Amino acid sequence: MNELQTVERIRRLVPGMARSGVVLGIGDDCAVFRPRGSREDLLFTTDMVIEDVHFRRDSHPARAVGWCTLARGLSDIAAMGGEPRFCLLSLALAPWTDRKWLNAFYRGFLDLARRAGTVLAGGDLARAKKVACDIVVCGAVPRGQGLRRGGARPGDAIYVSGELGASALGLEKRSGAAWKRHLRPEPRLELGRFLRTRLRATSAMDLSDGLSLDLRRLCLASGVAASLDGPLPSFPGVTLDQALHGGEDYELLFTVRPGTRVPEWHRGVPLTRIGTILRGTPGRVAYAGHSLPPLGWDHFRRR
Amino acid sequence: MNELQTVERIRRLVPGMARSGVVLGIGDDCAVFRPRGSREDLLFTTDMVIEDVHFRRDSHPARAVGWCTLARGLSDIAAMGGEPRFCLLSLALAPWTDRKWLNAFYRGFLDLARRAGTVLAGGDLARAKKVACDIVVCGAVPRGQGLRRGGARPGDAIYVSGELGASALGLEKRSGAAWKRHLRPEPRLELGRFLRTRLRATSAMDLSDGLSLDLRRLCLASGVAASLDGPLPSFPGVTLDQALHGGEDYELLFTVRPGTRVPEWHRGVPLTRIGTILRGTPGRVAYAGHSLPPLGWDHFRRR
Repeated sequence: MNELQTVERIRRLVPGMARSGVVLGIGDDCAVFRPRGSREDLLFTTDMVIEDVHFRRDSHPARAVGWCTLARGLSDIAAMGGEPRFCLLSLALAPWTDRKWLNAFYRGFLDLARRAGTVLAGGDLARAKKVACDIVVCGAVPRGQGLRRGGARPGDAIYVSGELGASALGLEKRSGAAWKRHLRPEPRLELGRFLRTRLRATSAMDLSDGLSLDLRRLCLASGVAASLDGPLPSFPGVTLDQALHGGEDYELLFTVRPGTRVPEWHRGVPLTRIGTILRGTPGRVAYAGHSLPPLGWDHFRRR
Repeated sequence: MNELQTVERIRRLVPGMARSGVVLGIGDDCAVFRPRGSREDLLFTTDMVIEDVHFRRDSHPARAVGWCTLARGLSDIAAMGGEPRFCLLSLALAPWTDRKWLNAFYRGFLDLARRAGTVLAGGDLARAKKVACDIVVCGAVPRGQGLRRGGARPGDAIYVSGELGASALGLEKRSGAAWKRHLRPEPRLELGRFLRTRLRATSAMDLSDGLSLDLRRLCLASGVAASLDGPLPSFPGVTLDQALHGGEDYELLFTVRPGTRVPEWHRGVPLTRIGTILRGTPGRVAYAGHSLPPLGWDHFRRR
C-alpha cells in the first residue's frame, strides 16, 4: 500500500462526524473544526519530523530543525488561507542531544513562531533513541472560508508560487543558496490569505512531497485531471526531476477560475501559471504529452 | 535537568500570549484556547507513545497500543473536566509493522474513540526505525470552567480515584487483572465532569507519572505543600513503592474545599481521601511523617 491508499483505508474506518463540530476530516491539509457559537473555523494540522528520515544529526543544524518543524505545520495553515493562532510541540529527545542542541532547536522554532505571530501553547517531552518531533498548528479562517484541495474545476488555471526543486537540490549539494532554502523554508502565509480573500482560488495545497505527487492528490480530491503546459519555475541549477518530484519546497499549488487576473508577483514571490485542470481520469496528470508518474515523496512506497 | 526544570526553561523562552486566544499555556494537563465569540474554552493536549519507551513490540498487543495512545490524551481532558470533541493522530510506522498490526492498532484506538464520543479528524503518517505515535485531543469546557492544577489551598482535602499501582504491577507480572489494567486504562471522563460541575474541585490532574511526582507537580502549581495521611487505595498485590511511584494509572488526583461531601463511589469507581493540602514549602509532600521523594516517572532524570 502507498500512503494515499493507507490514508483512504484509515478514513473508511472512522465513523461519521455528525454533531462533533468537525466539518472537514482526514485527507486535506488541515482538519476543520467549528467551535460552538464562533464565526471562525479552526484549522488543525499535525506533522512529524524524525531524525534520519527528515533530517540528519551531522548535516542539519539544530536551529534549522526547529525552524523546519514549525514551517511544515504553518505551511498547511497557509495552504488553507488561514491565520496561525497557536501551536503545540511534542519532542522526543535522543541520548545524543544536549542542552546546547535543545536551546538552538527552540531558538529556530521560536524565531519562526514570532515572525508568524503564533504562540507555543504546550506539548509533550519524552526520550527516545532518535529525535522525533510532532508539530500541531491551529489556525483560523472566517467560517466556511478555508481553501480546500477539492474545489478545482475543468478549465481552471493551475499556478505555483516561488521556485521548484530548491530543497531537493539543496539536500544534494549541502551548500549554497539551495541548501539555505532547504534549511529555512518560508511558509507562504500571506500568500495563502491573498489566495483566499483576493484571488478566490478554487483550490489550494502546499507542496510538501513534490509537484507530481501533490498535484495528483489535488486532482484526486477534486475529481479532475490536469495538464502541465507551461514551463516550470525552477530554482537555478535544478534538474527537471527535482522540479517535478522534489519535496519540501513548501510553495503553494493553487487553481483559479479561467480569466482570473493573477499578478506575476506577490510580496516578492513569483506566481507562475503551469497548467490547466481538465476533465478526465481523476488524478491523471499529463506533462509534455505524457502521463506524469507521481514520484514525489511517499513514506509508504517500497524503495 | 529533570523534566520539570526542562519544561520551566522552555516556558520562559516563550513570549507572552496576549491577544492570541491562548488563556493557559505550558505546564498544565492541557493548553486552553478561547475561540472568538464562543462560550466554550477548548482544551488541547498532546502525548507521545514510543516503541521501547512506552511499549514493547513483543509484549504489548497492537490493539492495546492503539487504545492506550488515545487513553493518555483523553485522561488529560478528563483531568480538566472536559468533554472530548476530536483527536488527531500522528503515527510513524517501523519496518516490522504490517497491515495486521496497523488494523489492530486502529481497532483499539477507534474502539475507545467511539466509547468516549470523540472523532479522529486527521493526522500524519510517516516511517521511522521505531513506532512513534503522537496523540492530540481537543476537548471543551464552558468558558473559564476548566479544572487546573494550580487551585489547591491549605486545608483542602486530597482525593484520588480508583486503585493505585495496578499499571506498574501489571507491567511487572505481564498477566492477570493488573496486566489488563495496564493494557486498557479507563480515562475518567465522567468523573472529571462530576468534579467540575458537582464537587467544584479546587484542583485536579491525572496520574500519569506516579502519585509522588504528580502530587508534587500539583503542589508546585498551587504553591502549597501536602501531607498524605490516609491509607492509599492500592490495587490488590501492589507494593507500597508501586502505589506511591508507579506510573500510567490514569486515575484522577483532586482537591476539594474542607467539608465538601465526596461520595465513596462514582459510577463504580472508588474515591478515597488520601491527605490534606498544607501551607509550607511549595511542592513538599510528606508521607508517614517523612518527606516523600518524587520518584515517579521522569523522562529526564538520569537513571
